[in-house]
Amino acid sequence: MIKVVLIGDGNVAYQLAIALQSANNVDLIQRYSRSESNNSLFDPSIDHTTDLKHLKHADIYILAVKDEAIAEVAALIPDLNGIVVHTSGAMGLEQLGRHQRIGVIYPVQSLSIQQKINLKKVPFAIEASSKEDLDVIRTLISHISEHVFDLDSAKREKLHITAVFANNFSNFMFSCAEDLCQQFDIPFDILRPLIVETGKKIQYLDPLEAQTGPAKRLDHEVIQKHKKELKGMQKEIYTLLTEAIIKTYQKNNHGKKL
Amino acid sequence: MIKVVLIGDGNVAYQLAIALQSANNVDLIQRYSRSESNNSLFDPSIDHTTDLKHLKHADIYILAVKDEAIAEVAALIPDLNGIVVHTSGAMGLEQLGRHQRIGVIYPVQSLSIQQKINLKKVPFAIEASSKEDLDVIRTLISHISEHVFDLDSAKREKLHITAVFANNFSNFMFSCAEDLCQQFDIPFDILRPLIVETGKKIQYLDPLEAQTGPAKRLDHEVIQKHKKELKGMQKEIYTLLTEAIIKTYQKNNHGKKL
Repeated sequence: MIKVVLIGDGNVAYQLAIALQSANNVDLIQRYSRSESNNSLFDPSIDHTTDLKHLKHADIYILAVKDEAIAEVAALIPDLNGIVVHTSGAMGLEQLGRHQRIGVIYPVQSLSIQQKINLKKVPFAIEASSKEDLDVIRTLISHISEHVFDLDSAKREKLHITAVFANNFSNFMFSCAEDLCQQFDIPFDILRPLIVETGKKIQYLDPLEAQTGPAKRLDHEVIQKHKKELKGMQKEIYTLLTEAIIKTYQKNNHGKKL
Repeated sequence: MIKVVLIGDGNVAYQLAIALQSANNVDLIQRYSRSESNNSLFDPSIDHTTDLKHLKHADIYILAVKDEAIAEVAALIPDLNGIVVHTSGAMGLEQLGRHQRIGVIYPVQSLSIQQKINLKKVPFAIEASSKEDLDVIRTLISHISEHVFDLDSAKREKLHITAVFANNFSNFMFSCAEDLCQQFDIPFDILRPLIVETGKKIQYLDPLEAQTGPAKRLDHEVIQKHKKELKGMQKEIYTLLTEAIIKTYQKNNHGKKL
């Protein structure tokens, strides 16, 4: 049994608690959170403390807290023999400060309390300060996910950049669409099936093949009509992304018939 | 029985053929395509012609051809008594030229031959030049989709703009992520579960609530680190979208605690 203490009560902590509790060979022995406000979200049978001095002895302490709180919380954790890991894509190992045995478990997924997700299908990028601890971390994460891979801090930061495009920026495109629906008096619900399918397509197509629309087919007439209806930030975004798509397909079709 | 002739053999024609064939009270009596090259994709029991002069008498002729071909193909269709409709979000009714009874059925979905899709869940925006023909079109489309709504050409063009953001631009974000994965030597497969979830979330959250990432949380340190790793077009996109997200959340959080 790998004994785990979970620190934090946000989106990542919530999903990890569920996965760790149902995993074989894993014992989630304790949760820590600064306040008791989110306690009702968690299984009350898990021992809970609001005092870092009362942390139990465990093999792994998982800091599932906000990026900017990692260094501060890590500094407050007493010296214990277990491995201290954080869950951030953007932060390096060094955030864990003076602790001797440190590591990272980064779930490449946008997790939220609103929706329970099957972590089995979520890839985890893992890292540790020693080969032995990396083995312990890999064993633990293998119990909750089928996709565990090693990635050092430098490369994890790069993966995080790709995730910003794949998730943050694509979601912001949905947000622009919603804002335009309000401007145009069109119910946003009409777009929801399109949005789901946009993501699903990438399970069996490369995004380059899945691309459609006026920019891809160099339809300058439609592009001009669209620009006339847009203003401000959304016009700037439309212009830049349209140019970028045109360039991308000119490059990729170099020598091929369009 | 509503008799339908389907003109075209691309993505939209393929999906419509399947839906029309399995619909109650609809008889897909003929298909037209310029060549026979895609014939193997279609049920061979549907009568097929490559000559527009041989079109059968039908209630509705559906032009499922590329935007830029609509006017040309419409002009070549002989004078028949049925309603001639196109399937484009970007094009007006006037593309159908001299025909007396005209309309539009625009599926708000990115359709492809690679993946059969359930059109029942796909919203269709419909339009016609007369109230009577709009009723016929509505009856037809109600047999293949649960979500049929009336939209005139001007508003359909606006809906198309929102779909460019919701689909074309979000897909291009996935494309940028894939390109970056190649640059950084990270397998793109790691991002596929994140991409699916990004779209699925919008079924139960508004994009404004679903937004996460360094721009949303004003994490300037991470933003600067990311910019250092990017160049060219991707750096421009990162910069513009990061600014836009920051502005959006400042606006929406005006007066609220961040």
